[in-house]
Amino acid sequence: MDTPIEPIRTLVIANRILAREGVVDGFGHVSMRHPGRPDRFLLSCSRSPELVGVDDILEFRLDGEAVDSRGRDVYLERFIHAAVFEARADVQAVVHSHAPETIPFGVTGTPLRPMFHVAARMGATVPVWDIADRFGATNLLVANMAQARDMTATMGANRMVLMRGHGITIGAATLHDAVTTAIYANLNARLQFQAMLMGEVRYLSPEEQAEAVKLSTGGTLGGRRTWDYFRHRAGCDEM
Amino acid sequence: MDTPIEPIRTLVIANRILAREGVVDGFGHVSMRHPGRPDRFLLSCSRSPELVGVDDILEFRLDGEAVDSRGRDVYLERFIHAAVFEARADVQAVVHSHAPETIPFGVTGTPLRPMFHVAARMGATVPVWDIADRFGATNLLVANMAQARDMTATMGANRMVLMRGHGITIGAATLHDAVTTAIYANLNARLQFQAMLMGEVRYLSPEEQAEAVKLSTGGTLGGRRTWDYFRHRAGCDEM
Amino acid sequence: MDTPIEPIRTLVIANRILAREGVVDGFGHVSMRHPGRPDRFLLSCSRSPELVGVDDILEFRLDGEAVDSRGRDVYLERFIHAAVFEARADVQAVVHSHAPETIPFGVTGTPLRPMFHVAARMGATVPVWDIADRFGATNLLVANMAQARDMTATMGANRMVLMRGHGITIGAATLHDAVTTAIYANLNARLQFQAMLMGEVRYLSPEEQAEAVKLSTGGTLGGRRTWDYFRHRAGCDEM
Amino acid sequence: MDTPIEPIRTLVIANRILAREGVVDGFGHVSMRHPGRPDRFLLSCSRSPELVGVDDILEFRLDGEAVDSRGRDVYLERFIHAAVFEARADVQAVVHSHAPETIPFGVTGTPLRPMFHVAARMGATVPVWDIADRFGATNLLVANMAQARDMTATMGANRMVLMRGHGITIGAATLHDAVTTAIYANLNARLQFQAMLMGEVRYLSPEEQAEAVKLSTGGTLGGRRTWDYFRHRAGCDEM
Repeated sequence: MDTPIEPIRTLVIANRILAREGVVDGFGHVSMRHPGRPDRFLLSCSRSPELVGVDDILEFRLDGEAVDSRGRDVYLERFIHAAVFEARADVQAVVHSHAPETIPFGVTGTPLRPMFHVAARMGATVPVWDIADRFGATNLLVANMAQARDMTATMGANRMVLMRGHGITIGAATLHDAVTTAIYANLNARLQFQAMLMGEVRYLSPEEQAEAVKLSTGGTLGGRRTWDYFRHRAGCDEM
Repeated sequence: MDTPIEPIRTLVIANRILAREGVVDGFGHVSMRHPGRPDRFLLSCSRSPELVGVDDILEFRLDGEAVDSRGRDVYLERFIHAAVFEARADVQAVVHSHAPETIPFGVTGTPLRPMFHVAARMGATVPVWDIADRFGATNLLVANMAQARDMTATMGANRMVLMRGHGITIGAATLHDAVTTAIYANLNARLQFQAMLMGEVRYLSPEEQAEAVKLSTGGTLGGRRTWDYFRHRAGCDEM
Repeated sequence: MDTPIEPIRTLVIANRILAREGVVDGFGHVSMRHPGRPDRFLLSCSRSPELVGVDDILEFRLDGEAVDSRGRDVYLERFIHAAVFEARADVQAVVHSHAPETIPFGVTGTPLRPMFHVAARMGATVPVWDIADRFGATNLLVANMAQARDMTATMGANRMVLMRGHGITIGAATLHDAVTTAIYANLNARLQFQAMLMGEVRYLSPEEQAEAVKLSTGGTLGGRRTWDYFRHRAGCDEM
Repeated sequence: MDTPIEPIRTLVIANRILAREGVVDGFGHVSMRHPGRPDRFLLSCSRSPELVGVDDILEFRLDGEAVDSRGRDVYLERFIHAAVFEARADVQAVVHSHAPETIPFGVTGTPLRPMFHVAARMGATVPVWDIADRFGATNLLVANMAQARDMTATMGANRMVLMRGHGITIGAATLHDAVTTAIYANLNARLQFQAMLMGEVRYLSPEEQAEAVKLSTGGTLGGRRTWDYFRHRAGCDEM
């Protein structure tokens, strides 16, 4: 089955944006559900996001296996994406990242909470998943479906989950939403660290968060404005 | 009525400078009062400041509506600019930004205060406006004139207002002054955070602040030197 | 004896990567054991890593002296490399750096410990060497084999040693491993500083560290992916 | 009297280096004593350091007045340079900067002290000058010789002085030394802030500082290595 080229190009741009904004480095990946087959998703072969090109995008099944790997190595942690797409019909795009500013939250149990409106897309609650709870002493990578499904269970209906000693996973209704959630989660984490050292923090109320998150999937904040900006910064205007 | 091209070019450069200096990202905007019609102001259509060009600048009335939008989308929060120009005859330029370092001040109630001379242009007092006080649980955007006027009332005669969980708004007598105030407010916020963790902070005295702020609207610090510098960094030497 | 060109090219790329990632500045250096003669190692003449080219790479003996300096100045601290290669047959590459984020750990005695999986390559324990313990008041440089051997003794069988008031030294089984260890040690240091201010830190357990460090010398994390990424960022795609 | 071109070129490069390394922004300046006339010094006209070119360099007397301004505006704070050259025959180069990381030290009275060897060039003691002590409420600029001499008196025989609510001034025996002192003072300030939050800091001992500072005026650390590096980063290889 042919995959249309436009979604693939957009996925490549998403890879480059996440690299340019410091949310991923040599590691991390972003995927989207196949536009024509909801039981499949698109994800790069094992390359760093900054280097991903159109030819690197492969098709995967919801068990995490490539439909046809074309001889390429695949990400060890592709199961993260598979399990989120499997469990969450509402999710069309997944980002997994070691977003640096979020790491201290995962290892101290400090709740990561949206502190300003553009970060509302993290969701009101960001649960923390600890692989050690069910799988004991591992290398912390999510290396199979059992581990990935356990992470997804902790994620529940939330938009994001912190992975202790590892990073974050985000599931969103659009690729744009997943990408911008990763960017602003990382920024919120840095600013929340600073605010907590300054005094008592007034977070967005649950009602404010619920109102503000609507902006991320439509209207002004969900529209072309930020995508055009991030794409330009990532050097992808011509793509 | 024709708008002269030179002010429009300067406004475009101001957009690019704010992006280059990290004061705005995909969001944020800067405006100037129309040089010939004080009841109008110039502001980009809905684009990220880094991407704004001469053709994007539109003319607005003081009720926040575009005189002629030429089919372009407009910023939802254009009312911020309208209300400041409406209330403050002394203001010729307005910046609205989510300047990251200032966010923790808005959500902790820690007074943001000038700590070194180039930041004196923030003003001696930076009030904090909380949209929830009068408008309850919103998405925190300033979406109409009533909200914008409420913000402007809290701003009062000050040069800057913090918006809780959102960002800042600055009104100044020149575009250069508004832009450099935004840049140095962001820097002062970062350094004030550090200083507060180190011990008791000696801020500029009110008298020192009053003396130093004069430099931002004329003389050495208000002259061409920093504008040439920022314009160069923003890649606008040829503009 | 001729040194093959490929390892020399890789060593040049390693220099550029460390500069690009902010682990070295004008100071710092990286070496590799000679591929054909384990009693020799390759190291640049006295140049900043960002500027090192193929012609700058010299061959050194395990006493720290150049086999043939070709009239070039050599690094004063070449003894660091010599002593690590001398003491540790398992080490094939050495990085010495003033990695900025690690400096506060060396001067406060705060144990630097891996907090997330990609930083496991620092090792479970990072000892601190203080040159003053045996050599009194010096300029802190490692200026001879006696000082370098003392540092190596403190390093022991660990992968990394902190040098009080100075920097770090890393010994690893591959050049890629040494380089990425330096990069992630610096990042872990910054994030650990933040986490410690937020609360009790859950570090990788010794078992998790032992599992995760295996990834850095083989398999997914030790493979080409991150090297290609770092090389690209360092502008060395064509090298 | 003709000024040789080589020192002027070097001074231009010093300007660009300080800008590239974030020690100066639109403000700040660097000067050198005239190589042939010790009662004069070379300093740019009123331009931001990043933009300074060979034609911008003017000659000044030790009272702070330009020998021939060639119609150019001059820095208001040129008196800082004049007073240091006047009082300190050992000083051949002066940097004045608002080095951001040092500002919190000036306003909290926290002693800025060298914590690692490359920062030893700050000197063992960095006094803090407060313009208000003798001149009351000013705009904090050093606007005449009386203020500049008062600052220089507080500086004494030290290599650097903190100016409360303003910045730093450095006097050194070579331009290279002044430039690198400014760069590493800024870095030391950032890392010292972090270290102080982590616990008791072990600074360089006075003996270690005295040994390490020798490296900045000769030998390995005072040689061409770092200058070549900084010049390259500043885009001045061809200059």
